[in-house]
This record gives sequence, structure tokens and C-alpha cells, in this order.
Amino acid sequence: MLAEIITIGDEILIGQIVDTNSAFISKELNKIGVQVYQITSIQDDREHILQALEDAKKHADLVLVTGGLGPTKDDITKHTFCEFLDDELVEDKETLHHIHAIFSKYLQKDPLPANLEQAMVPSTAKVLKNAHGTAPGMWMEKDDTVFVSMPGVPYEMKYLLTNEVLPRVIRKFNRPHIYHKTLLTYGLGESSIAERIEKFENELPNDIKLAYLPSLGRVRLRLSTKGSNETEIRQRVDDKMAQLSEMLKDIAVGFEDETTIQERIGAILVKKGYSLSLAESCTGGAIAREITTIAGSSSYFIGSITPYETQQKVKILGVDAGLIEKHTVVSAQVAEAMANQCVKLFHSDVAVATTGIAGPTKGDAVAEVGTVYIAIATPQRTIVEEFNFGKPRERVISKATNKAFEMLLKEISKN
Amino acid sequence: MLAEIITIGDEILIGQIVDTNSAFISKELNKIGVQVYQITSIQDDREHILQALEDAKKHADLVLVTGGLGPTKDDITKHTFCEFLDDELVEDKETLHHIHAIFSKYLQKDPLPANLEQAMVPSTAKVLKNAHGTAPGMWMEKDDTVFVSMPGVPYEMKYLLTNEVLPRVIRKFNRPHIYHKTLLTYGLGESSIAERIEKFENELPNDIKLAYLPSLGRVRLRLSTKGSNETEIRQRVDDKMAQLSEMLKDIAVGFEDETTIQERIGAILVKKGYSLSLAESCTGGAIAREITTIAGSSSYFIGSITPYETQQKVKILGVDAGLIEKHTVVSAQVAEAMANQCVKLFHSDVAVATTGIAGPTKGDAVAEVGTVYIAIATPQRTIVEEFNFGKPRERVISKATNKAFEMLLKEISKN
Repeated sequence: MLAEIITIGDEILIGQIVDTNSAFISKELNKIGVQVYQITSIQDDREHILQALEDAKKHADLVLVTGGLGPTKDDITKHTFCEFLDDELVEDKETLHHIHAIFSKYLQKDPLPANLEQAMVPSTAKVLKNAHGTAPGMWMEKDDTVFVSMPGVPYEMKYLLTNEVLPRVIRKFNRPHIYHKTLLTYGLGESSIAERIEKFENELPNDIKLAYLPSLGRVRLRLSTKGSNETEIRQRVDDKMAQLSEMLKDIAVGFEDETTIQERIGAILVKKGYSLSLAESCTGGAIAREITTIAGSSSYFIGSITPYETQQKVKILGVDAGLIEKHTVVSAQVAEAMANQCVKLFHSDVAVATTGIAGPTKGDAVAEVGTVYIAIATPQRTIVEEFNFGKPRERVISKATNKAFEMLLKEISKN
Repeated sequence: MLAEIITIGDEILIGQIVDTNSAFISKELNKIGVQVYQITSIQDDREHILQALEDAKKHADLVLVTGGLGPTKDDITKHTFCEFLDDELVEDKETLHHIHAIFSKYLQKDPLPANLEQAMVPSTAKVLKNAHGTAPGMWMEKDDTVFVSMPGVPYEMKYLLTNEVLPRVIRKFNRPHIYHKTLLTYGLGESSIAERIEKFENELPNDIKLAYLPSLGRVRLRLSTKGSNETEIRQRVDDKMAQLSEMLKDIAVGFEDETTIQERIGAILVKKGYSLSLAESCTGGAIAREITTIAGSSSYFIGSITPYETQQKVKILGVDAGLIEKHTVVSAQVAEAMANQCVKLFHSDVAVATTGIAGPTKGDAVAEVGTVYIAIATPQRTIVEEFNFGKPRERVISKATNKAFEMLLKEISKN
């Protein structure tokens, strides 16, 4: 069974927005055993939409379309679907009620005629209720292919996909199980890894696929397969992954699955009863932001400080001014002191500190652009590592943030 | 002239990564007058790649392909291009030198055979030097269509596109000028805006297109046109945009262009000689992260504190404990006190403070999930506003962050 995703919107094709909907839909489809054959982004243009629907119909059993369902003139998806299906728009009473209810509850006013037009749907469409907005989803069929139209607003699309579309896909289609397992490694390039595991890779069965995913100092290695027996395919991939992790045990930091590294850190902190605080200089809040994105982080995250100006490291964090003078502000000694002071300031068990030069200029620093020191303080000890993340600025910040999480995970995972 | 973008990689189709390359490429092409007709994401699969290249050739004068150029077995783009062009791989001496140089300079070791294979390119390809990596870009032609192959690693792709591909596209193709101007508004839904500007929209000339881009509490309105005379098309769009801004002056916050809201805030702070500090509770570092992403932010950003635990608001930030007890921690009074205390703690001219319940649970809070107070302190006054951003958690954090920047921009823009 194959699916295709079509995202409609001029804003995608002029680069005004990044299409995150496709990745979300692909991931969710994958989880239920539906393989995505192609993702296509096209303009709000009648002919182009018709062409894309025809093309998708050739390969796919299921075509998920997002975008073009708003109340304004540039939204033409619904009319184009009518043309494609040789159908006409009719008013859906339930959607009409829903639109009135949303306007009276959240906006305390009456809907405009343009809003009420969102209750018009192709007569043969099964209407999917959008609890997060006024534009309904629509489930349509032509010959043997199912077409689903959803709004492009991610919040609304996610609601419809999760609550209305996926349950119907599960009921309607026979799907194999798809299973991926991904090993996270750092410190070695992909070609060196490939060399080390060459024999393993050559001997992999044809139906288990190995992929290398390099990014910012890390390589992720993904093994994938599919089949009808879930237990069996999991077992086969898990066995191979065990071999792979053994070969790469010096560079492996764990597996990537549904849980992110931040969630894994959170789980360990909760289990050990540790609290966490941060002193971020060059990462400027990026670590705190990732931590606080996790629901429940308030149970272990006490707080953070970004002492961006050098003197704030002394004044608020309490780092010894003499230490900064002696070693400069971007140094292992200052990173270590920042982590230790952070533990004291927030009375936390664990602290992460960063200091570095993100660039593009060095300012009055002695160290080179890209130099970053990361320190982790735990009840057992404080460690500090030096890195050079090169440039540009965003890359230095991202790499330092990733590395801080890797170091933190490794440190708190001990004993 | 039309372009198409093809991104190759299983990781995109299983939703393991978000394809950000396409948005970057689209934006850059647009700037030089090249319209992107379609973006297609496909698997690392020989037949599928061949099919996609054939399909793209039907519409496009220029096809930009990313991905599948790594040194490992799952990278098949180069071999597939040879098949498509009826060509064969030959060794490129300059690339070979470059690979050796990179290995000796950055990795202090010899390249592996797999690395050296990256110097093999189709014999008819013009090789584009990749200063940021070992895989070169390739400029190829078939009939009247140009095909460019670039690595999928964003950092390397961006280098090649900017330094090697775009200059060649500019020299080779006649392109019209494309001009967009986007107005940022907040506080009114897209249908209400559409109603207010209905007459304006109906009277727009056919070649000027209006698009509505709603997102998290904001609607962006984009006017676009293209033509051969740059001055003329700019003038026509600017005139229409002036009318539009006048009609929406109560909800408009400015124009979106090359500068982000964070950059505009930075420019105003520098101009006025103001320094900035932050006290972020529910936004947990998200505002600081955006501020510090801007190069040069260290000239005005003094630092921030994320007093996540309630008692840290008292202990480190110095908010009156009695005030918290009287009004609860998520209240206008506490937000205001946080902003004022932040000014004192960091000796800054301007401060932003947030306190709220991001959810999913209320914890011991009195306020509803989604409630956020944002305060802005300037030398003139401290303002505070209450919001309810609903749920889920990420959305509350994002909306609060966006809103804080909008409030900050408005406040510091006043005399």
C-alpha cells in the first residue's frame, strides 16, 4: 500500500514557509505501516492541482492533501476537488452548526458569509469534523484511490489526521508492519563508520535497509524493514541492531525512537530525583527552550540564567572575577565555575554551563570563533570539554546545544 | 522560466527529518526571478529518481536536486544521473585534491576509498567546488534543461547554491523580476480582514496576486507580481501595499522582508542605545534563544533568567513573595514585577517578562492552561497584557514568544 502527500500553497514554493506538515504526516503514516511514495508541493493553481491529483492516483492508494481550505479567494482546493470528482458543493449542516458555535464561543460574534462557505463540501465527501477550526476535513474516493483534504494550518491538520483520518485508514486498508530502529553515534564520520561496518553491511539481508543520516557532528544509523508479522520483523531488526551497536559501542550514545534526547534526560532526572539548572552563555537560552518544551519539565527544571554580558557571570552567577581575568571568559575554568555556581545559585543537583564565541566576530575574546566550553556538574563530579564548532553562528549554537544534551545524558546515565 | 526542486532521501519520506532545503532554495530562486513550479521529495530509489527527473524535464528549465551524494552505499544519485544522461563516471582531479586537503587539514588522516569515490563525476558534468564538504556539486544539461545535483547537508547545499549555482543561473537564463511585499497584522482573523478589504481585493489588477498567510494569532498579507521592469513592478506593488496598510493600520505591525522581527528589534535597541534583559518563566528560554541567534546581539542583550520554579522568582529575581501569594504566580501583577525586577537585576533599559501555564496540566496554578501574562518594561513605563493561547504546550510557548516580540517591537518603536 502506497500513499502520497500533496501540499498546496504558493507560500511553500516561494520559500516563505517550511513545509512541516509533510514530515508529520509521513511519520504518522509510517507508524501504522503506510509507506509514503512521494511528497509533492504545488501552487494554488487549478490546473496544477488537477495534474498532481491525476499523477498521484497512478501510484497511490491514499492521497493526503493539505492547504487551500481557508475562507479567502486564494483558497481553491475544494472547488478543484469538485472538478476532479465531477461533483458539486453542498452545504453540510453539522459543519454549519460547528462554525456558528466556534464564532459564538471564542469570538463572540457572528460568522461572515465567507466563514459559512466553509460548510460547503463536495456532495460525495465524507465530512471529517475539525474540532480545532472551521474548515472541515474531507474523505473522498475516485476509482480505487482515497483522497483526503485537510487544512494547511498545522494545528488543525494534526488534529484531523490523528483523530479522524488515521483511524479510518487503519480500518480501510491492509497494511504491513514497518519497523525502524535508529542508533545515535557521535565523534566519527559516516565514511569511517561505513568502513568499520562494511562486512556487516554487505551481509545484511536484502529486506533490511541501512541508512546513514549525518548531521552536525553526529551520524544516525537507521535499520528498517517491513512485513506482516510484527514480532518477527522487530526481532530481526533488533538482532541486527544489537550487532551494530556492539561494533560501534565506543561512539554510540543510544537509540532514537519516539522519545527525544530531552525526554530521555527528563526521565532519568525524575528517576534519580535530580533537579536541573542551566547557565547558558553562548547557547543563549537554546538549551532551556528545549528542556521546557517537554511537558512535565517543571518537576525537575528549576531554572536557568543566561549571563550574556561577562560581568553578569560575576554579579548574578557569582563566578570569581579573578578566574575570568586569569583564564579569559571563554575557558574551561570559567565553564566549570559557571556549572558549579549554577548548582549553588539554584540549589540544583545537576547543572549545565556553556561559554563560547558563536561569532561572526570575536569581539574582545582571545579564543577563536567557534570555540565552546561545555561543563556538566553532577553530585559526583564536574566535567568540562572543549569544542570548536567552526561557523556560522547558528551552526555553532545548534552544535553546542546538541553536544550539551549528549554530555548531560552520558553523565547522568552513569550508575 | 520555471524551476523544479527534487529532494532525495528516505529520511524525508518516513518523516525522520523536515525538508528545510526546499524552502531555502525556493526563497533564493525567487529573489533572482526564478519561479518554482513544483517541489518533489522522493526515495533513494533508482527508478523513482529516473521518473522524477523525466517528469521535471517536461515543465522545468532548471531542476535542482539535493541528496544522495554521500560516501555510503545508500547514496545512488550520481550513478542514477549517469544512467539518465547516458554518461559514465570519471575522476575529477581537482575534487580529488580537495578531498585529500580536507582530510589532512581537518581530520589529520588519509581519506578512505569511499571518500575518494566522491571525486568521481559524470564526464559531461561541470564540477562545482564544495568548500564546505567533500561531495562536489554538478551542473549537467539534457536537451534544453539544466540539472544541478547538490549534497543534502544544508550547510553544504547552501554554500554551493549561493556561491556556485545562483551566479551561473543568473548568467544563463533570462529572468523576469519577481517582487513580493508582505504586511504583518495581528488581532483579526483572515475572514474579517477579507471582508474589510473586499473592494480592494476585487479591484486588484490581475497580475498582482494577494495571499493570506494565517499563523498563530497573526495574518500575513502578501502582494506579489513579476515583470521585466523592476522599478515599475516595485512601484505598482508598493502603491497597492500603501493602500492596504492604510485600510489595516489598526492591526498592522509592519512589513516582513529580509529582516526578521528580532533583527528589527535589535536595530531599534542599537539606535536608541537601549540594553535588554529577559525574565522568562513559561517561555523557558525561547525568547532568549531567538534574540541570541542574531549576530551582534551581544551589543544590547545583557542576559536573561528563567526562574522556572516559583521560589526562584523571589530568590534570584527579587519579586515580592507577598505579591505572589496575593495574586498567584500567573498574574498581571507578578509579570509586571518580574519585568521591573529584571531591569534592576541586569541594570538594563528594557526588559521582557513572561509568566503563564503552558500545560498540559495546571499544576498548582489557579489560572487556566494557556493563560500567559507578558510584561514589557521600558524607561518610559511598564505594560502588561493577558492572553489565553489555548493548547497544546508547544503552541502556547510559540504564541507567547511571538506575542512578546510584537509587544516589544511596538513598545520600543514609540518615541
